[in-house]
Formats: sequence, structure tokens, C-alpha cells
Amino acid sequence: MTTADTRPETVHGPHGYAKEKDAHLKRLRRIEGQIRGLQRMVEEDVYCIDILTQVSASTKALQSFALQLLEEHLRHCVAHAAAEGGAEIDAKVEEATAAIARLLRT
Amino acid sequence: MTTADTRPETVHGPHGYAKEKDAHLKRLRRIEGQIRGLQRMVEEDVYCIDILTQVSASTKALQSFALQLLEEHLRHCVAHAAAEGGAEIDAKVEEATAAIARLLRT
Amino acid sequence: MTTADTRPETVHGPHGYAKEKDAHLKRLRRIEGQIRGLQRMVEEDVYCIDILTQVSASTKALQSFALQLLEEHLRHCVAHAAAEGGAEIDAKVEEATAAIARLLRT
Amino acid sequence: MTTADTRPETVHGPHGYAKEKDAHLKRLRRIEGQIRGLQRMVEEDVYCIDILTQVSASTKALQSFALQLLEEHLRHCVAHAAAEGGAEIDAKVEEATAAIARLLRT
Repeated sequence: MTTADTRPETVHGPHGYAKEKDAHLKRLRRIEGQIRGLQRMVEEDVYCIDILTQVSASTKALQSFALQLLEEHLRHCVAHAAAEGGAEIDAKVEEATAAIARLLRT
Repeated sequence: MTTADTRPETVHGPHGYAKEKDAHLKRLRRIEGQIRGLQRMVEEDVYCIDILTQVSASTKALQSFALQLLEEHLRHCVAHAAAEGGAEIDAKVEEATAAIARLLRT
Repeated sequence: MTTADTRPETVHGPHGYAKEKDAHLKRLRRIEGQIRGLQRMVEEDVYCIDILTQVSASTKALQSFALQLLEEHLRHCVAHAAAEGGAEIDAKVEEATAAIARLLRT
Repeated sequence: MTTADTRPETVHGPHGYAKEKDAHLKRLRRIEGQIRGLQRMVEEDVYCIDILTQVSASTKALQSFALQLLEEHLRHCVAHAAAEGGAEIDAKVEEATAAIARLLRT
């Protein structure tokens, strides 16, 4: 696992990033609530199809979070590497593509 | 939302279903833990790509739960409707296909 | 590969099935046209994003074909096995779930 | 639709791009063959589940093609815009993210 300190500090300024961070946490707390809702549904023997509908909503919310994260990553990290020039950009693009492939295969 | 009492009682006997229910709840609690893990990752500014990897794992776990639920639904409800005969089976199959379509589109 | 003669003859009457078959072939020919369209786009150096949009449309069309096929399969084969009773239904449901899992993972 | 001449010429040099183009066309011709194979399967009344397996293979091949295209796009167009600097990069990243969202939702 790569930790935050490997990322260029200039890219994630405290202000812009703090705002994004709050939005991410809010989103994730909502998804956590959906997963707890699923547990209640199972406990109360709710009809399978209704549970599946809620699973689809949670998966969609996770994908949406992933896309938001990916967009910021492309804008900050990938674009930053490109602006710097050099070999770094190829590694960054490969890494991002591999992450997209993992999202597509789920 | 359809509540549990609309399902045929003979299909979900107390023993078999209780076991499935425990397995479902265990699975969902693990997914809830993954979502809380994602919140920690965001809070600690973990590298985007590592967060995305964890999102893929959570989505995969949710899909896996959905497939388990779907299999039980086909085995119990759809097969039950088919054994009963009559028009019910068409409605059940359409309903199941629509649920699968929602899973595919996420 | 399982050939057609393993399916119960009573389930796919000549008329209903012939109609479905024509619809399937029409759909697949349209998808084949889309794939040839993609080749033209690559040959003419069309902008990547526009090619990706067309790939999404083709994938969606394939998924739609799969859902249609799956619905018929559940209605005919799975329901037929359920009506017959016996152990056959479990095998059929497992087989269908595995096929849905493969569709989800792509 | 954006045509090829809107892309920077320096990015897709004749040699590198020609090689990629051949690989893309080869891939797409293979997918076209798979779609024709699906038509034969339907015509010969092959068992639904076997047809679904082949649909999954074709969808996977299309996704794989899309990922290849996306990687080149990120490397060439997005990185190029970033290196140029200016507002272009935001538009490019948004456009790429929207394309990834379309791939995810199919």
C-alpha cells in the first residue's frame, strides 16, 4: 500500500482537497447506512427481489464514488506526472488503467 | 415492498433458512467493515489507487451476496411457482430477470 | 457443449421458438454491424472517445441479448425442471446462477 | 463526432499508431467472428447456457478492447493536454471519466 506521503504535496492543497474529502466521507457514510439497511432487510425476511434492488443501489453508489475518485486522480496525479514529463507518466497511466479494469471486472 | 409473509411458508423452513440468514448477515457485516475501512482510508489520505482497489473488493463482495440471494430465490420462489403451475411463473421469471438486469447495469 | 436435443422437446414448440429465434438472429446481425462499424472507425482514425461510446453501445446490446436468452431459459428450462420435480431443479438453478455470475464479471 | 484531424499530429506518429491500429483491427475482427459464431449457435439451437458463455466471452473481449483504447487515450491525449497546460486538461479528464462511466454502466 502506497501512503499519502508519496503523493506530491503541491497537488492536493489543503483547501480543495479538504472539501473533496468531506464529500467522500459523506458519500461513504451513506453507503454504510445502505449496508446496514440491507442487514435489517435480511433480519426482517424482506422479499429477496427487494433486497436485490437495494444491493443494486449500493453497488451503483460505490461505482459512483469510484468514478469521482478516479476523476480526481486523473486530474491531479496523472496530469501532474504528465506536466512533469519523463517516464513517470507511463507508469501512472498503466496503474490507472489497471484500476479501471478492476472496476469493470466486478 | 413485499414482506416475508407473502412467501410460501413451506419453502423457507425455519432451519435451512436460519442458516442462510446467518451467512447473509455475516457477509453483510464484513461488507460494512469494508465500507468503514474505506472511510479510514479517505481520512488518512491513502493513495487513490489503493482506495479504488478496496472499492472493487467491496463491489465484488456485494455482487457475490446478490448472486447468493438470487440463487436461493430461483431455487425457492421461482421453482415453487413453477411447481404450482399457472400464470404465476411468468410473473416470477420477469421479476427475476428485471432484478438481474439491474445488477448488470450497475 | 450441450446440443439442442438434450432440451425437452415439449418446451420449445416450433412456433413460439421460431419467432424468438428470428428475433435473436436479427439482434445478433445488428451487433455484428456495430462491430464492423467499430472497424471502420478505427480505420478512419475516429477520435478514441467516440469509439469508446460505440463499444459501450455494443456491450449493452450484447447484455440485452443475454438477458433475453436468460429470461427464456428460466421460463422454459428451469421452470420445466421445477414442474417435473426431483433433483434436476438444483442443478439447473446452479447452472443458471453460474451463467449470471459470468455475465456480471465481464 | 470528432474526427481524427482534431487530434494533435505529433501524438500519434505514423509508426507507433499504425502498429496499434493493426492490433485493434485484428481484435475487432476476432470479436466479429465471435458474434457470427453466436448466430450459428442460435441457428443450430445450441443450449442457452452455452450461448450465454459465448456472450460473456464476447463482452469480455469488447471490454478488453475498450481498456486498450482508453490506456492509449490517457497516455496520448490526456497526457498531451496536461503537458500543454491550460484549461484543456479539465475538459479531457471529464470526457475520459464520462467514457469510463458509460463502460461501467453497461
